[in-house]
Amino acid sequence: MMTAPFSTLDEFTALLNNQPAPDAAASAAASARNAVLTKPPAALGRLEEIAIWYAGWRDEAAPRIAAPQVLVFAGNHGIVAQGVSAFPAEVTAQMVGNFATGGAAINQLCQVAGASLNVIALELERPTADFTQAPAMSKDDLLTALQAGWTAVDPTADLLVTGEMGIGNTTSAAAIAKALFGGESVDWVGRGTGVNSAGFERKIAAVEKGVALHAVSSGLDVLRCLGGREIAAMAGAVVRARSLRIPVILDGFICTAAAACLFKANPAALDHCIAGHLSDENAHGRLLEKLGKRPLLDLGLRLGEGSGGALAINIVKSALACHSGMATFDQAGVSNA
Amino acid sequence: MMTAPFSTLDEFTALLNNQPAPDAAASAAASARNAVLTKPPAALGRLEEIAIWYAGWRDEAAPRIAAPQVLVFAGNHGIVAQGVSAFPAEVTAQMVGNFATGGAAINQLCQVAGASLNVIALELERPTADFTQAPAMSKDDLLTALQAGWTAVDPTADLLVTGEMGIGNTTSAAAIAKALFGGESVDWVGRGTGVNSAGFERKIAAVEKGVALHAVSSGLDVLRCLGGREIAAMAGAVVRARSLRIPVILDGFICTAAAACLFKANPAALDHCIAGHLSDENAHGRLLEKLGKRPLLDLGLRLGEGSGGALAINIVKSALACHSGMATFDQAGVSNA
Repeated sequence: MMTAPFSTLDEFTALLNNQPAPDAAASAAASARNAVLTKPPAALGRLEEIAIWYAGWRDEAAPRIAAPQVLVFAGNHGIVAQGVSAFPAEVTAQMVGNFATGGAAINQLCQVAGASLNVIALELERPTADFTQAPAMSKDDLLTALQAGWTAVDPTADLLVTGEMGIGNTTSAAAIAKALFGGESVDWVGRGTGVNSAGFERKIAAVEKGVALHAVSSGLDVLRCLGGREIAAMAGAVVRARSLRIPVILDGFICTAAAACLFKANPAALDHCIAGHLSDENAHGRLLEKLGKRPLLDLGLRLGEGSGGALAINIVKSALACHSGMATFDQAGVSNA
Repeated sequence: MMTAPFSTLDEFTALLNNQPAPDAAASAAASARNAVLTKPPAALGRLEEIAIWYAGWRDEAAPRIAAPQVLVFAGNHGIVAQGVSAFPAEVTAQMVGNFATGGAAINQLCQVAGASLNVIALELERPTADFTQAPAMSKDDLLTALQAGWTAVDPTADLLVTGEMGIGNTTSAAAIAKALFGGESVDWVGRGTGVNSAGFERKIAAVEKGVALHAVSSGLDVLRCLGGREIAAMAGAVVRARSLRIPVILDGFICTAAAACLFKANPAALDHCIAGHLSDENAHGRLLEKLGKRPLLDLGLRLGEGSGGALAINIVKSALACHSGMATFDQAGVSNA
């Protein structure tokens, strides 16, 4: 088991601010190749943008995707004591069991995507603190979760999806979004797994109270006071992927909230990330806008588990297959326009 | 080689009007299964609708997709004489060669989708007539093309994508759309493979002239007078798929125009079809609205070849993998809400 190269939050921040950029020569070579493939200019739409973006990160003019990894982190949340979820907290552990036996949606989606799946349960028996009463995590808790995310990334992966499972975590994500970007609580709160109207009101009250109590706005403070272990671990994994030049597909609202904490700390921190989908969870679209990310898919999913990100893997894989596998006009003897 | 069970257009129309419906018991069983899978209600969004729809057509509560087929028909168009395309007519045959050697986008997309690909070139050396001067096809030509489409469908396929290649065929599709649904020519004409402004004006003029000349409005008359062999073959394949209970993913503007001719003849004719994507070609969204179809993907593609449909295969496959592979709450020992 590798260890993370940071043992303090300051060291993590230093890593976050000293990250690789896309390779300009590889991007230029990919653009040049794209221009001579056997299709009308721009006829593959966003697939072309994705291919060039991916090539830059991989430092290769014509790469392919052969080893996508999906990471699902699980954590429990003290905030469930406020009655914010339609499901009881024990479902987090039960679903981790379901992931292990292959019964969840993400198992099926990984199979269709040809992706490996790793599920990391983070101290489920020790929920974070109820953030309406105290910071969700201590600095040590946050550090440990970031390290767990960092070390979970497979260095041989060539595409990463980060997902989560954690009853109560849409409330946490809503609080994160409000603390980072302001606005009304009701604009950031959604129905999560399907909470009823009374529960919805309790979610709004919890977000309101938590954000006011901690009055934090920096990325890592927000992550620590209002987040959760699985949310912090996703952030750690996104940073690790960047250090390995592995492009990332973000999943839904909670994953995007994790990424938003990094974005607040360093607006360039998500340049290697693409939004896999637009979730049906109320505030996801608003949050993606704050990050300047346009989702690839819009299919009304609101499941978490990395599901929307996993569903987008084959789109990204297709983009690279076309880019790297198609013939040029010259090779195919096809007349250009 | 099988032969089609129709030898006149009237016999084809009779088949079109005597087609199977989804199996109500299978749909009900699929809905019941969907309700107890380990996820919050409706959390898989459109994937759930797709799974139930597909199950009904396959007459099976929990089917999977193992053998998708992509059919690409190619044809040449007399209308190119009007200067409506950015590419010369010989590109149709050159691209058929490119399909054969694996160099086109659709080859790559089929590989990622795990789909078989069959390309059928339809008398490329004998273009249809210029529809501003005469009907594009004789009744015999239309019949032959419908039969080619019918016989090309693999009866063992469990999902079909119909695509096309034919320089000039966005002009044909625009004329079909206007003849079927009225409206201004400019609302149905787009840039196709990237025609310039003068060419765009010539496309509008050609559509205007062709639609006025033939003054037809029934599905098969429109298909014959303004269509093309590859367009008619797609229509034949869609009807054949229905008779085999094989659900169909429609591709872009030209494929949708072919389907629209069937829709005009019988509004229930496309119940087994789903729209794979929204093309960037100007009028595709408007045409899908006429058919009441909401596209799965919106990635700015405008290539044809079945590319958008092929890209959607893995979405449909994922929907069925989740539906048929996930555990129920009882099986997984997960507490329900």
